[in-house]
Amino acid sequence: MSGDGGAAAASLVTSRAASVAQDIDAAFDRLLAVPDDARARLYDAMRHAAIGGGKRLRPLLVQASCDLFNISRDSALRVGLAIECIHVYSLIHDDLPAMDDDDMRRGKPTVHKAYDEAAAILAGDCLHDLAFEILADEETHPDPFVRIDLVRALAVSSGPAGMAGGQMMDLEAEKTRFDLATVTRLQNLKTGALIAFCVEAAAIMARLPHEARTGLHGYARDIGLAFQIADDLLDVEGDAALAGKALGKDAAAGKETFVSLLGVARAREQAQMLVDQAKAHLHGHGAEADLLRAIADYIVERDR
Amino acid sequence: MSGDGGAAAASLVTSRAASVAQDIDAAFDRLLAVPDDARARLYDAMRHAAIGGGKRLRPLLVQASCDLFNISRDSALRVGLAIECIHVYSLIHDDLPAMDDDDMRRGKPTVHKAYDEAAAILAGDCLHDLAFEILADEETHPDPFVRIDLVRALAVSSGPAGMAGGQMMDLEAEKTRFDLATVTRLQNLKTGALIAFCVEAAAIMARLPHEARTGLHGYARDIGLAFQIADDLLDVEGDAALAGKALGKDAAAGKETFVSLLGVARAREQAQMLVDQAKAHLHGHGAEADLLRAIADYIVERDR
Repeated sequence: MSGDGGAAAASLVTSRAASVAQDIDAAFDRLLAVPDDARARLYDAMRHAAIGGGKRLRPLLVQASCDLFNISRDSALRVGLAIECIHVYSLIHDDLPAMDDDDMRRGKPTVHKAYDEAAAILAGDCLHDLAFEILADEETHPDPFVRIDLVRALAVSSGPAGMAGGQMMDLEAEKTRFDLATVTRLQNLKTGALIAFCVEAAAIMARLPHEARTGLHGYARDIGLAFQIADDLLDVEGDAALAGKALGKDAAAGKETFVSLLGVARAREQAQMLVDQAKAHLHGHGAEADLLRAIADYIVERDR
Repeated sequence: MSGDGGAAAASLVTSRAASVAQDIDAAFDRLLAVPDDARARLYDAMRHAAIGGGKRLRPLLVQASCDLFNISRDSALRVGLAIECIHVYSLIHDDLPAMDDDDMRRGKPTVHKAYDEAAAILAGDCLHDLAFEILADEETHPDPFVRIDLVRALAVSSGPAGMAGGQMMDLEAEKTRFDLATVTRLQNLKTGALIAFCVEAAAIMARLPHEARTGLHGYARDIGLAFQIADDLLDVEGDAALAGKALGKDAAAGKETFVSLLGVARAREQAQMLVDQAKAHLHGHGAEADLLRAIADYIVERDR
């Protein structure tokens, strides 16, 4: 693949993504076996949110990053599963009436609609714990130094200095008009931090020296931002049926986004520039980085 | 101390508890320094819930358990801080309108009253992450095997097989009439699991062989249940001003408790029996277990 994207990239992403999605669903099905007691409803709510649907982009990104270092598929899958636990927990909580108040997610009713708000809060909390339980287990990686580094990096990426901090900024965005620098920082936290962890996790498992991680960090930062710009474009131009959720909500809430600040044409240019830059960070790698290159292309070309 | 409780026990608990509470407040103050950006409100909400107030029983229990094994005060404090993060996060989420709908906690407005529901959900989520970030950091303990064991044990204690699973059962208790066995199981999960982790954490840091932990596990199980029975008694007989929260809510919600199932007199007997049994589990220990013994007595004698 020359790195120009197009049909070959899309097909590489599609085939690997389908296999990853199947593995993640099967793993959630085993992990979330419903107990025969008063907690059944809690597990049902977790299963509703975690199984079936979703692009599984983050677990795919872990696999693609692990391709660079010959890390076992099992380790990559378990780390991807832990990240998906965090991602799904954050969707459940973000969808709550007190937060973004969404009724549909991944083409299904959100958890608080299908169950109730209490079950949604607790199902999110439980998936949050499961992420760390999965990473701490020796099945994930034999080296305890690696596991503890994964735990610490994930806790930072999902907490107040990462995803949750970005979500708080996002809520404040309805009250103040943010400039481009602030929206960029918000998105680097809200979606960028967890995407960056997907790539960082492979570097941690490979015990790659910190000075050798610069290129990967650059790749992750660039695709994280490109992903969010593409999301903002889809929010304006996308198809709600394909997306499986309500669109056009940012404009309705009066929130500044990359599209409101840059306009559609410049936002699209900016996303493509970031994708090219992301791929340039992989110049030292050969065919083993093809999936990472294809994911970068896919991120701006996707229709959901 | 002979193990009969009374004034000596109360004074031992009071003096150590005051010092632990001071250390925990100071640690939260450093950990939750408010950033100069749109996340300030999130940190303010976390500080509101985490700093000042609370018995800090769990961090005290970690200290008392660490007394048995000459574990450093610093390690004990950091583990206690992580557990308090989990405890405070669970209080914030449990107090939400969709859950127990409480307006007062520790004599102050609950987080969703002082801020709003979104800030409360996110503040809880962030404290949840911080717990694991603290445990994963090498400042907590030099041995990565110990740190990863702490992470795994805490994730299990707080997740669907522990505290959060118990909270789900508690919500279901308003719909069904539970029998004594089910209420016992509910409380073993809802409050018992995290209390047991306080003691288990010391055994993990001491790298105590599993077969040598039986007595400690028995102690933890017994005081966990005694604590909950005492809570149920306080809910019926206590002083809301001292408790700093609304009382009498279980009866109003038609929920079965130890008191509704056993009556006041038998519930009090049962709690005392459990305290005696808890102390009997410590028979192999000398004066180094005095604080653990005093905590057992304090748990049923406290007025808040």
